[in-house]
Amino acid sequence: MSLTASEVNELKKAPPVEGVLPTIHERWSPRSFAAREVSPETLKKVFEAARWAASSYNEQPWRFLVGRRGDSTWQEIFDALGDFNKKWAQTAPVLILGVARTRFSHNGTENRYAVYDLGAASSYLTLEAAALGLRTHQMAGFDQEAARKALTIPGEYAIGAVIALGYQGEPAALGDAGLIEHETAPRTRKPLDEIVFSEWGKAAEI
Amino acid sequence: MSLTASEVNELKKAPPVEGVLPTIHERWSPRSFAAREVSPETLKKVFEAARWAASSYNEQPWRFLVGRRGDSTWQEIFDALGDFNKKWAQTAPVLILGVARTRFSHNGTENRYAVYDLGAASSYLTLEAAALGLRTHQMAGFDQEAARKALTIPGEYAIGAVIALGYQGEPAALGDAGLIEHETAPRTRKPLDEIVFSEWGKAAEI
Repeated sequence: MSLTASEVNELKKAPPVEGVLPTIHERWSPRSFAAREVSPETLKKVFEAARWAASSYNEQPWRFLVGRRGDSTWQEIFDALGDFNKKWAQTAPVLILGVARTRFSHNGTENRYAVYDLGAASSYLTLEAAALGLRTHQMAGFDQEAARKALTIPGEYAIGAVIALGYQGEPAALGDAGLIEHETAPRTRKPLDEIVFSEWGKAAEI
Repeated sequence: MSLTASEVNELKKAPPVEGVLPTIHERWSPRSFAAREVSPETLKKVFEAARWAASSYNEQPWRFLVGRRGDSTWQEIFDALGDFNKKWAQTAPVLILGVARTRFSHNGTENRYAVYDLGAASSYLTLEAAALGLRTHQMAGFDQEAARKALTIPGEYAIGAVIALGYQGEPAALGDAGLIEHETAPRTRKPLDEIVFSEWGKAAEI
């Protein structure tokens, strides 16, 4: 028998570390979304969080296209998804496409940190969503150029990720055995000594 | 007379919104760092937060080179900074350089989301630092290739940002009038209707 949504949340939670923001350890990326609407007020808060991320020259290169299930923007984002993502993202009440302006407003030169800064803003968005009891799942698996065309995104904007957002559904509702297996497996991360170095390839003493 | 560090923290705080993580509104990027060490235990927590960010295929492409004032890594990162950043970053007890592996481990193909994911992990790092009473300031103003060479970063890693980290210092300690002015000005961000669209260029109703 499959685990319930709340059992899965326990399983996905990273081991707590004193002083580390609990939401960072609790956030994870489900694929099962409940048939529950997200209010405009709630949605506003996740973008409010994104808005306060840091960016190079305070350019704030991020723009978010937000579609709600039933509207044309949702459908256009959905249509650009790869087949694997279509299998589960169809129940997401909100689909967001993040893009980043690749030129600085103040002088028109290239902003090499546009996509980096979009990643930052999007990660505040996903963290805030978790804080509000929502879930998000970011996707790279979609046709960027199809999305650009359908959503008339100007060429000077780089395409980021699609973010499915909603309330968490029951794992069993995914139907597909492979998806359920992913949904109910623990989260894993590299240990710190593989990612924090004092010199290249040498673990920092922390 | 210049504002004190705690007066500036009040000034920099974004207007609170019920339900939005307070740390997101409190985090900001000073240039004045106090002459106070950061313990290894504390430093470990900021990387623990970075570690749990989401990434494409859970690749976790991020790597962080961490230098402490007085060691060669700190010096090599510092030496790559532009003159403007050198003016203030010299007091930062910790300098971090984030880089991202641009090929997937599982099949060697290009990871187009490596830098996006590095931006995400770095933003969890900066948020967690704020939660711990630390401050961070990310910089794009440095010579990427000088840093790559000095720190022997392999070619398949893209260079991200340099992050100064430490405890906040008094604005007046910056000395320079221009820096003090930046340090004591309110933070500004675009309103949501300029960054959240229902269709390209059309503000979403949230």
